Amino acid sequence: MEKPLQLRIPGPVPLPPAVMRELMRPAINHRGPEAKAVNQRVAEGVARLFGSSQPAVLLTSSGTGAMEAAVINTVAPGDKVLVLVGGRFGERWAQIASALGADVDELRYDFRIGANPDEVADRIRGAGYRAVFATHNESSTGVLNNIAGLAEAVRSEGDDGPLLVVDAISGLGGAPFRLDEWGVDVAVTGSQKCLMSPPGLAFIALGPRGLQRVESIDTPRYYFDLRKYVRRLPETPYTPAMPLLRAVDAALGLIFEEGLENVYDRHRLLRDMVRAGVRALGLSPWTEDRVASPTLTAVEVPEGIDGEAVRAVMRDEYGVEIGGGQGDLKGRLWRIGHMGYAFPPDVMAVLGAFEKALAKAGWKEGMGRAVAAAQEVWVNWA
Amino acid sequence: MEKPLQLRIPGPVPLPPAVMRELMRPAINHRGPEAKAVNQRVAEGVARLFGSSQPAVLLTSSGTGAMEAAVINTVAPGDKVLVLVGGRFGERWAQIASALGADVDELRYDFRIGANPDEVADRIRGAGYRAVFATHNESSTGVLNNIAGLAEAVRSEGDDGPLLVVDAISGLGGAPFRLDEWGVDVAVTGSQKCLMSPPGLAFIALGPRGLQRVESIDTPRYYFDLRKYVRRLPETPYTPAMPLLRAVDAALGLIFEEGLENVYDRHRLLRDMVRAGVRALGLSPWTEDRVASPTLTAVEVPEGIDGEAVRAVMRDEYGVEIGGGQGDLKGRLWRIGHMGYAFPPDVMAVLGAFEKALAKAGWKEGMGRAVAAAQEVWVNWA
Repeated sequence: MEKPLQLRIPGPVPLPPAVMRELMRPAINHRGPEAKAVNQRVAEGVARLFGSSQPAVLLTSSGTGAMEAAVINTVAPGDKVLVLVGGRFGERWAQIASALGADVDELRYDFRIGANPDEVADRIRGAGYRAVFATHNESSTGVLNNIAGLAEAVRSEGDDGPLLVVDAISGLGGAPFRLDEWGVDVAVTGSQKCLMSPPGLAFIALGPRGLQRVESIDTPRYYFDLRKYVRRLPETPYTPAMPLLRAVDAALGLIFEEGLENVYDRHRLLRDMVRAGVRALGLSPWTEDRVASPTLTAVEVPEGIDGEAVRAVMRDEYGVEIGGGQGDLKGRLWRIGHMGYAFPPDVMAVLGAFEKALAKAGWKEGMGRAVAAAQEVWVNWA
Repeated sequence: MEKPLQLRIPGPVPLPPAVMRELMRPAINHRGPEAKAVNQRVAEGVARLFGSSQPAVLLTSSGTGAMEAAVINTVAPGDKVLVLVGGRFGERWAQIASALGADVDELRYDFRIGANPDEVADRIRGAGYRAVFATHNESSTGVLNNIAGLAEAVRSEGDDGPLLVVDAISGLGGAPFRLDEWGVDVAVTGSQKCLMSPPGLAFIALGPRGLQRVESIDTPRYYFDLRKYVRRLPETPYTPAMPLLRAVDAALGLIFEEGLENVYDRHRLLRDMVRAGVRALGLSPWTEDRVASPTLTAVEVPEGIDGEAVRAVMRDEYGVEIGGGQGDLKGRLWRIGHMGYAFPPDVMAVLGAFEKALAKAGWKEGMGRAVAAAQEVWVNWA
């Protein structure tokens, strides 16, 4: 029989049936009234997740496209920028800014504990940075950074200080984000993580300083020229991926129906269940508890176990797919996604398959304890 | 009752059921073996439409994103380029190249008769252009340009002459394209026209000189850096819009099942049916017959008729949506799409609604003759 697949990588994520149904609607004119209404709901709904009072702009691109848009609209060639790097997606900010001609400094932080606002404040003082690039939820390691603290540090340089530009791709909708309240200037996200939709759309929220920079900066850009996107709101300057837009519209409906605070609480529950389960097997989550991501958990592969083989068994034999480490961390990490369309029984399924595959690989410790420990967290959750 | 909608704008187009079904499949790992196989089939299938021996690269973006990618990978700031402009999409090439710092000359051609290869050959002789940008099928006017002739003109400058870069967005898959045979260097297309899929994906084919330019040029680029896309084939460097990729895969299957030559022939039939129908009503197609696009037909709005009102009646009362003029041509043109998932009975439906709406608007000539004339073309088709 065709096995059901539990896709528990750190995005893309499984799609709710209501989202899948939207994907199958007949094509409509992307310039007609129906498309405009969908655009508007999505622009406003995504803005709510960002904690932004202004509608979000919508790009048809991968999340990386939105990261490039954030760079090209805030930084000119030769500008000094600081990139906070604690994993692969921090590195991506640095690569994009370098490719586009910025003068890039990196502040590498311990990927087990996240970026330190005090260190950032020291580093930028009087240094003349035009922008600081940060990662909300670093999905290569499972760290949720303290964006409120980083924003405070960046704003200590005053209104003429650097902008704070945040990659919120793998965290937005799974963890709180308050662009206006924290004073973040630009933030980007994608459709395929906590927005429970397929990949292919990206969104950008602009605070007042971010918008001013977008309007005033003179860099060579066309497809990612955010001025055109802001002016055309709630429509887009170029043909959008309409079925994906409808999908996000439906997903936002589900999120607001559950209630944003409830959604965040659910993600914290899933995180705590996974961490308890992993520890009950004698394994270690990769990050400290206080910065633990609510959307994915990275786990160290222990000595003597072939991490990639465990993943393959989980996928091929039990129909549960988790992520591995990226780049240098390949084979050293498992990354268990618990974002978006994920609920406590799904954690049981993942941990069950994980325990079974570990047993098969020769791991002796704590069999049955992972699901039991996760269950205990669930039972005792408020 | 919910009315069926006949979407007959010049793209996006209606989706075949087999394509819609692909959109509703559960999410899969975009880095797994299944995704890789889909990528490979699509890269090779789209290459067949381009007439290219090399797999096409795949971008998650609107068609305009692929146009920007074609520019940034072939032209550096300050380079002299020639853009052939005969409508809105020719203008777009010029806008993108200007935005990215190229020194842009425009050769404006009569949009009723298309670009003239001899004129292009004269214009580029010894002029030191780095690239010439052309439009295969100009969807703002309904002209199918003679790309074979333009390629010959451009190649008359020899191997050190300009590259020929072609926007094939609204024609590829509906009209022949032979990148290798004609000597086109770069060509781009999108998913939402003759590829019968939703918007959101774009494709680029590179000839040997195009690939060489991509590999050697030193321009600031990241998301649209085609070197990375070529190296990662058949995968993509960034998360692709997986459901759209599956959709294109299914659509290519339908196209090759019908047979490419049969598909082109069907498009020519639809074109001739529409043109005969329009003329039977005493109206004029916008372009000369010898350059008439097989994927859409623009029709002049006659004096005394409110073209936009006719479109609104067709859409709101009869469930048939056609396009209007763009920019300066708004209100002066109707644009009837007959591309992709379009067959002779669909032309009857469109022309029927068109005649009915024209009658309602007070047009007296030739009622019933449009559908009859189109029918006659169909009956007599080989």
